[in-house]
Amino acid sequence: MPTRTKIKQLLQEAKVGEEIKVAGWIRSNRAQKTFSFIELNDGSTLGNFQIVAQNELFDSSDLTTGAAIIATGKLVESPGGKQKVEMQAEKIELVGGCPADDYPLQKKRHSFEFLRTIAHLRPRTNTQGAVARVRNALAFASHRFFQERGFLYLQSPIITSSDCEGAGEMFQVSSLDLNKPPKNKDGSIDFSQDFFGKPAFLTVSGQLNGEAYATALSDVYTFGPTFRAENSHTARHLAEFWMIEPEMAFADLADTAKIGEEYLKYLVKYAKENCEEDLNFFDQWVEKGLHKRLDHVLEAPFAYIPYTKAVEILQKSGEKFDFEPKWGIDLQTEHERYLTEKHAKKPVIVTDYPKEIKAFYMRENDDNKTVAALDILVPKVGEIIGGSQREERYDRLEAKFREHELDIEHYKWYLDLRRFGSVPHSGFGAGFERLVQFITGMENIRDVIAFPRVPGQVEF
Amino acid sequence: MPTRTKIKQLLQEAKVGEEIKVAGWIRSNRAQKTFSFIELNDGSTLGNFQIVAQNELFDSSDLTTGAAIIATGKLVESPGGKQKVEMQAEKIELVGGCPADDYPLQKKRHSFEFLRTIAHLRPRTNTQGAVARVRNALAFASHRFFQERGFLYLQSPIITSSDCEGAGEMFQVSSLDLNKPPKNKDGSIDFSQDFFGKPAFLTVSGQLNGEAYATALSDVYTFGPTFRAENSHTARHLAEFWMIEPEMAFADLADTAKIGEEYLKYLVKYAKENCEEDLNFFDQWVEKGLHKRLDHVLEAPFAYIPYTKAVEILQKSGEKFDFEPKWGIDLQTEHERYLTEKHAKKPVIVTDYPKEIKAFYMRENDDNKTVAALDILVPKVGEIIGGSQREERYDRLEAKFREHELDIEHYKWYLDLRRFGSVPHSGFGAGFERLVQFITGMENIRDVIAFPRVPGQVEF
Repeated sequence: MPTRTKIKQLLQEAKVGEEIKVAGWIRSNRAQKTFSFIELNDGSTLGNFQIVAQNELFDSSDLTTGAAIIATGKLVESPGGKQKVEMQAEKIELVGGCPADDYPLQKKRHSFEFLRTIAHLRPRTNTQGAVARVRNALAFASHRFFQERGFLYLQSPIITSSDCEGAGEMFQVSSLDLNKPPKNKDGSIDFSQDFFGKPAFLTVSGQLNGEAYATALSDVYTFGPTFRAENSHTARHLAEFWMIEPEMAFADLADTAKIGEEYLKYLVKYAKENCEEDLNFFDQWVEKGLHKRLDHVLEAPFAYIPYTKAVEILQKSGEKFDFEPKWGIDLQTEHERYLTEKHAKKPVIVTDYPKEIKAFYMRENDDNKTVAALDILVPKVGEIIGGSQREERYDRLEAKFREHELDIEHYKWYLDLRRFGSVPHSGFGAGFERLVQFITGMENIRDVIAFPRVPGQVEF
Repeated sequence: MPTRTKIKQLLQEAKVGEEIKVAGWIRSNRAQKTFSFIELNDGSTLGNFQIVAQNELFDSSDLTTGAAIIATGKLVESPGGKQKVEMQAEKIELVGGCPADDYPLQKKRHSFEFLRTIAHLRPRTNTQGAVARVRNALAFASHRFFQERGFLYLQSPIITSSDCEGAGEMFQVSSLDLNKPPKNKDGSIDFSQDFFGKPAFLTVSGQLNGEAYATALSDVYTFGPTFRAENSHTARHLAEFWMIEPEMAFADLADTAKIGEEYLKYLVKYAKENCEEDLNFFDQWVEKGLHKRLDHVLEAPFAYIPYTKAVEILQKSGEKFDFEPKWGIDLQTEHERYLTEKHAKKPVIVTDYPKEIKAFYMRENDDNKTVAALDILVPKVGEIIGGSQREERYDRLEAKFREHELDIEHYKWYLDLRRFGSVPHSGFGAGFERLVQFITGMENIRDVIAFPRVPGQVEF
């Protein structure tokens, strides 16, 4: 194909008077008597590029909203446009037409709910284009953050026979013909004839695998999809979502808190520096005050509050909560948001939760009541990062397996990490979609992932 | 935890005379009369760091191979060591012991096959440490390559109801109790009661989703896990592997060939610049001549050979092939390797394959016999990238669905991309593990992914 200049690059680098070629999709076409204003978008940037074209250059029935064109012409100063420059077209080539009557994306505003039903076309909207660009920036920023600090990117397995949380609702994976599966004598399915010779599942976390690599190579992180077969229909849950899970050897809970705070601040800074136009859009149309909220995250050191103290604060707050705060319960979103939005008025790191409500692998504190766990809470979202120091003491971990009634035989390899050169180690998990919500202000998690998977939805 | 310096950083930046703290795992401990030479590794780099410690500083039964220690002392010049500097220890702290009798990683060389059975411990070996570092570098280099060119990273869905290749052997995903599934009247499983309300599968490719985003935002790429429920027990196949799939709008097959060549050269260059020590290791221990092979990839422009011509070359070659080359067959690895290793003596891009052996979505050429597809072949590996220009013409694509007996109803959304502002677009898929093999010389694909999933293997 002939070389074209992307609109983002053109607005940054091209000079008035230059001959250029642009390609993209028409967002609008306003016809005057002898010429038309065509607003073109190619996804490289939020703003449309204005093309001024004599009407004789094209058949006006072709250049409808959604049509793909290639335009050649001269870059000139724009007298009244939003950008400084526009194109004086010399040639307009229709690449792919777009029948106006059938095209679901009319020029009016569509509800996010409607757009989810056309997830294959919604990246053509301003909001979803902006989400895609910010999501891209945050993914790359995540890699950069950990790479700059010497962490190795580990691609932990997706199909697994382990259940990291020991309580997850997992999807099963099979290559058997489920309508005619091989059977055991007792009538149950003979999974020894399944692809992996035993039941297999989709991972809920790469952490255990991350620990194996961290206890060999020091600092690693995963960044991959994870799954929950939970029948949740909320704006906060997906059946398939991406997680970032750093794991550090020779590190304790304080190290994890520190890197978690640095990571969040890095993401905010990176987005502000690289996605200014998109963030302005979100600030204007999605969450008024977004910039202020993000700036606020950068400004102050995060607050540290032990869980026990947090419960006291909640009890004394005088707030009406749906769930009464008391020692031993897991904090609800309403509690988390109170702590970060009203109490501390900035991000809060809650540490040392009751051991009963936390996973088997977390390191028990000397009080025998709490574990070295933390959650990082941010305004608007609530919990955005959950981490812990892992139990590195062989005997303690073995005891935990018994307490949690987990099959030790199954976790033998995981115990090996404590048998051979065990080290204190620590890490966290961050749901990537929550991070995108945090930075964009988007309310529904289904609107920050390209093709959301939720109960009853696996289209596209 | 007290701050320690990683060995990589220490070798690059620390100065003789400085007081330092290192932490890691003992690779060997040679005791002399009054002092010992401890070789320490922390995964940040291949080479061990030498610590010279008076025997009175530790209990010698503690400091066995595999034990984790923290050592504090002074950096001094190394009289005879492999590195320029070593540590004169002042304090040695045992963090986690390693019972010599049980530890499966003895100092001798272990077979890669044996190491696969202890995949949770094998990152502690030189080879797997080097693989992990090179794999990490190549993953980051892939992101950098596409980011520098303005591609957006798209995380395409893992669970899907589409079958991209139209012929894949797919894993099914379910949250039903498979031993007691709900049934229809005819006795078949009622998948309307399954999590997604219909049968769902693990993706074989993110391409179709990539096309939806490329035809909205111009250039995108995916980088995520893909799956094949193929009962292959070869050194070239995994049931779960990672793919990079760029997709470009306003682009044809030549654009894809160009970016494919640039990408491979970028990876080689990046690895040479960032993983020199590890590549030296592979050159010495895994594939003699690795550096030469890689340099060779950088030197010359790739050769272009249309499929029809390639078949002629093979037929006239005088080589004995297991599969006789003739027009219409898919090229076998032996053919691919002949073309790249013996004929062109450099990477080869074979283009325009017979339409009968290629997927439904590839664009038909004007000869009505071939499609605009390409494979990039490299010495030692054979095919490493497969790409095509996609059929952007609505009628042609619809006809293809009929020819391939695919349910059009199911692909309606994909056809929409051709109904509304259709554009020529093109892209490729690269198996990430094959790329790691290509750069490291590792023979078996199971040795370039942390926890390989193959028939009968889903441990860890």
